[in-house]
Amino acid sequence: MAIYKAPLEDMRFVLNDVFQAEHLWSSLPPISEVTRDLSDAVLEEAGKMVENLLFPLNRDGDEEGCHFEDGVVTTPKGFKEAFKTYAENGWTAFSGNPEFGGQGMPKSLAVLFEEMMHSANSSFALYPALTNGATLCLDAHASDELKQAYLPKLYSGEWAGTMCLTEPHCGTDLGILRTKAVPQDDGSYQISGTKIFITGGEHDMVDNIIHLVLAKLPDAPAGSKGISLFLVPKFLPEADPVSGKEAGERNGVAAGSIEHKMGIKGSATCVMNFDSAKGWLVGEINQGLACMFTMMNYERLSIGIQGLGLGEASYQSAVDYARERIQGRAATGAANPDGAADPIIVHGDVRRMLMTMRALNEGGRALSAYVGIQLDLVKFSEDEEVRSKAADRVALLTPVAKAFFTDRGFETTVLGQQVFGGHGYIREWGMEQFVRDCRISQIYEGTNGIQALDLAGRKVTRNGGRYVESFLAEVRHWIEENGQEAGLDGVREPLVAAVDRLQVATEELLRQAGDNPDAVNAGAVEYLDLFGYVTYAWLWAMMMVNAAGRDDDFGRAKMITGRFYFERLLPRSEALARQLKAGAETMMSLDADLF
Amino acid sequence: MAIYKAPLEDMRFVLNDVFQAEHLWSSLPPISEVTRDLSDAVLEEAGKMVENLLFPLNRDGDEEGCHFEDGVVTTPKGFKEAFKTYAENGWTAFSGNPEFGGQGMPKSLAVLFEEMMHSANSSFALYPALTNGATLCLDAHASDELKQAYLPKLYSGEWAGTMCLTEPHCGTDLGILRTKAVPQDDGSYQISGTKIFITGGEHDMVDNIIHLVLAKLPDAPAGSKGISLFLVPKFLPEADPVSGKEAGERNGVAAGSIEHKMGIKGSATCVMNFDSAKGWLVGEINQGLACMFTMMNYERLSIGIQGLGLGEASYQSAVDYARERIQGRAATGAANPDGAADPIIVHGDVRRMLMTMRALNEGGRALSAYVGIQLDLVKFSEDEEVRSKAADRVALLTPVAKAFFTDRGFETTVLGQQVFGGHGYIREWGMEQFVRDCRISQIYEGTNGIQALDLAGRKVTRNGGRYVESFLAEVRHWIEENGQEAGLDGVREPLVAAVDRLQVATEELLRQAGDNPDAVNAGAVEYLDLFGYVTYAWLWAMMMVNAAGRDDDFGRAKMITGRFYFERLLPRSEALARQLKAGAETMMSLDADLF
Repeated sequence: MAIYKAPLEDMRFVLNDVFQAEHLWSSLPPISEVTRDLSDAVLEEAGKMVENLLFPLNRDGDEEGCHFEDGVVTTPKGFKEAFKTYAENGWTAFSGNPEFGGQGMPKSLAVLFEEMMHSANSSFALYPALTNGATLCLDAHASDELKQAYLPKLYSGEWAGTMCLTEPHCGTDLGILRTKAVPQDDGSYQISGTKIFITGGEHDMVDNIIHLVLAKLPDAPAGSKGISLFLVPKFLPEADPVSGKEAGERNGVAAGSIEHKMGIKGSATCVMNFDSAKGWLVGEINQGLACMFTMMNYERLSIGIQGLGLGEASYQSAVDYARERIQGRAATGAANPDGAADPIIVHGDVRRMLMTMRALNEGGRALSAYVGIQLDLVKFSEDEEVRSKAADRVALLTPVAKAFFTDRGFETTVLGQQVFGGHGYIREWGMEQFVRDCRISQIYEGTNGIQALDLAGRKVTRNGGRYVESFLAEVRHWIEENGQEAGLDGVREPLVAAVDRLQVATEELLRQAGDNPDAVNAGAVEYLDLFGYVTYAWLWAMMMVNAAGRDDDFGRAKMITGRFYFERLLPRSEALARQLKAGAETMMSLDADLF
Repeated sequence: MAIYKAPLEDMRFVLNDVFQAEHLWSSLPPISEVTRDLSDAVLEEAGKMVENLLFPLNRDGDEEGCHFEDGVVTTPKGFKEAFKTYAENGWTAFSGNPEFGGQGMPKSLAVLFEEMMHSANSSFALYPALTNGATLCLDAHASDELKQAYLPKLYSGEWAGTMCLTEPHCGTDLGILRTKAVPQDDGSYQISGTKIFITGGEHDMVDNIIHLVLAKLPDAPAGSKGISLFLVPKFLPEADPVSGKEAGERNGVAAGSIEHKMGIKGSATCVMNFDSAKGWLVGEINQGLACMFTMMNYERLSIGIQGLGLGEASYQSAVDYARERIQGRAATGAANPDGAADPIIVHGDVRRMLMTMRALNEGGRALSAYVGIQLDLVKFSEDEEVRSKAADRVALLTPVAKAFFTDRGFETTVLGQQVFGGHGYIREWGMEQFVRDCRISQIYEGTNGIQALDLAGRKVTRNGGRYVESFLAEVRHWIEENGQEAGLDGVREPLVAAVDRLQVATEELLRQAGDNPDAVNAGAVEYLDLFGYVTYAWLWAMMMVNAAGRDDDFGRAKMITGRFYFERLLPRSEALARQLKAGAETMMSLDADLF
């Protein structure tokens, strides 16, 4: 059966040892009070909460799913009560703005908390994840009036938030969206249109749902430059003289249906119909996409972490099964001579799967914390140069984290299922749910192909490789400073070769982009994958340098897992470099009719 | 929505042009009457049948699934009627022994028919697939009396067959199975025990179900040398003086439950309880595993083809969607300037996915036909040397086909789902079903890890690489004869390098196996994958030499797809070779407690 315990030791290692987070936090006044003791305690409490409150609802939530009847969405049994406890204990306010009732916790801590949430119950985790993104967006772009009216209740968990972008005819290409916003005399707008795939668009866990909706004004310019962002509550918080509605009356927005999906069945994915719903502008007119990107960038990292969290849950369950299930004998002779067979963890192929999962999860956790730290610097540093450099790093690594975490997360959940053999295919064992739940993370919040295009296009070729150059300089600087550490024995050369490979691949991409407009799109996924493997190699090197001095089991396991990463996973980047080099010509040359 | 049309043109190309099957068949007396006209007509009829009879039941069958009540299994609506039509039209007898009512069609034709079956409705296809394997096993090992009594009704589709191996505590490790067979005075046996994961163990589509069951005699030697094979019918075909049962009375075997699975929901996966059921020995006592391997090898190829078939259905659906769905603009400028956006097939990343699917499917189809031809040679050739060489080839390539087809099939169905974006995750569109249905093919019939171990162990290291040597000699001979063909321009060098890479990897595996007992198990999956990619490269080269002379759309598409394979997919084998070289040491060095 699936099991899950928050991986506290590894989380503390990453935060405290590898990145020395306390030292960093203490230099950033708004979070300078967050000590190592506090962060350790928060992680421990979060771990208990997800293990005891959320994980037990995960399997049943999948079997039951959400129900829809007459516009009302009912979440699976236990979700509503669990959410109440979750909110009452303050988890909904975790990294919110303290000015409006948030707890102001660092993002570098929040990413680890989010990982636990997705490990324990990914469907449940999506409800607060959307609300968090909505509060971030409102905090950054909404008027003080809107912030005062909405943020406190969103932080308290009495209300929840959504992100309404996709329409039946457009997802990736938001420039062609059709939802209309008509200005009203009182400064508000009437919003009409249909949005699909709205996570938490309607449900029974909160008193009000606050939709952030992309729509076009009647005279808006064509394409993505004509999109504005609106706040549309399910219930009007105040009386509305225009429509004559009382405070608390229903606004003109309702769920038309929910989707029947492959997974995340406890998460309500809604078709939302806006019918002259009252809404308020967030940010400037026609700047909606830029404002929404505050939320989308948050969600992209968050969804990346969904892949990571599910990979961790799958790994732990697979290890547990591999220790218990006996089948066959070790190639080196019976390991369990008194039993009818040996536990399958003795077999090379089972180890290959477990070590792969482990190396990818731990590499991903380190990258997730690294990005979290950059986000803390962007938000809290008083040094503009530091902020700007960190912002570049976040821009570069957000698509990598989203796509690489989820692609590797999917690989990991599939491997975990494989360890269970036939039982992995049976629903009650829980392993196939991780696979189904993880699959969406590669698709929504911008497909991984779109992430790759964002990386290879906007973040690399369109600025001549400046972000990558700065990132590679940091990596090379680290190697200069640490390259002779004993912890890197045996992996020093492949690390340097990998960094060179990323540099050559970047130059190759820039060269191809100059010659052929299709090149970026055609090579983007391979470039992103290569970027991910090389970045993990650097993070693994950091972890190995830190672990080498430890004379304990944790340190030994870390060193072995790191070597495994360099031996068995990093070589994939060599094939990717070769593939990228082939360019777009063949890929684009088959006439569309001949497929 | 998912669509499917039998890919007749490509099937004919592979069979008639690449392998010149008619020429081969004409040299093998039992199938010498099978002409190109006949095989083309059979494929066309099979295509119509699967498109019109089976594919329309696929989505609903998944939603409805099988039902279990009081030992009775009901298949999804329409399955029973479709099976009747299917059987009445002779499809159940396709490659059966003509002596007992089979149609004696060549295996090289049957593999293409099986691919269509799995494309159209994988759950449905499993019922005849199990029956086919059972008839093959009975035809090879059962007494004449049993053959006379059972084969005609199995070929006619009035009865169906199953394969009962797995027990709750053992799947891979059959040596520890517990089902007992007690000899009776009348020469029969009483079988008692529990078998799980029995595909088609109980259902409503046929009058009788014939179980092939592995069990142990009371005095059998321990381990896999003490396993015997028994035929156990659901209903006794003749009166039984021992129990006093009339002909047609129920035997002591019944389904205890069915599994709730991730996919293949229209296929009944049963727990079968044998309670002093009457059974008859098939083959010799304690030779059960060897006999069962006749069935298992059939099923392994068949399950490989499940992956291939699902990949093809996913590909066709994805192409259809990519031509219709409009989103964004081509990098080279609007391709559909009058529309709001371009069809997504213009985008490099969508092409990457479609071309990958296409190249893997067509490579797989060629290997499937090649293995089919080898099986025809084993069965029908009058030349012992030819038979023996072909048998070696089948032994070598069966695990490759099973694992590589299904791993690449899974990759392909996931890519097809990805092309659909968010809609790919919604059940009604049908794309996620292909993923779920395909996932089992990597697990059952010997997990792909077990296939890899079979290849790297039994088929390579345990015979000193003799099978691979012979296979590589055939490939090198082909390159000598065809290497200068214009069709190979641009891919000649990577082809030769790939063949060298497989040879070096084989030598590496043999060397490691001599040093470390864990090496084979630890490197097996990477070796199998490498083997698969190199073999596809050879088959693609064959196809390109054949297609180069054609001045038509089919030929042009084939050449572009072939180049794509060499540019974007074959490089994966380089990484695999590097990974394999790392050996087992790191992988095996983490103490089981430290995971």
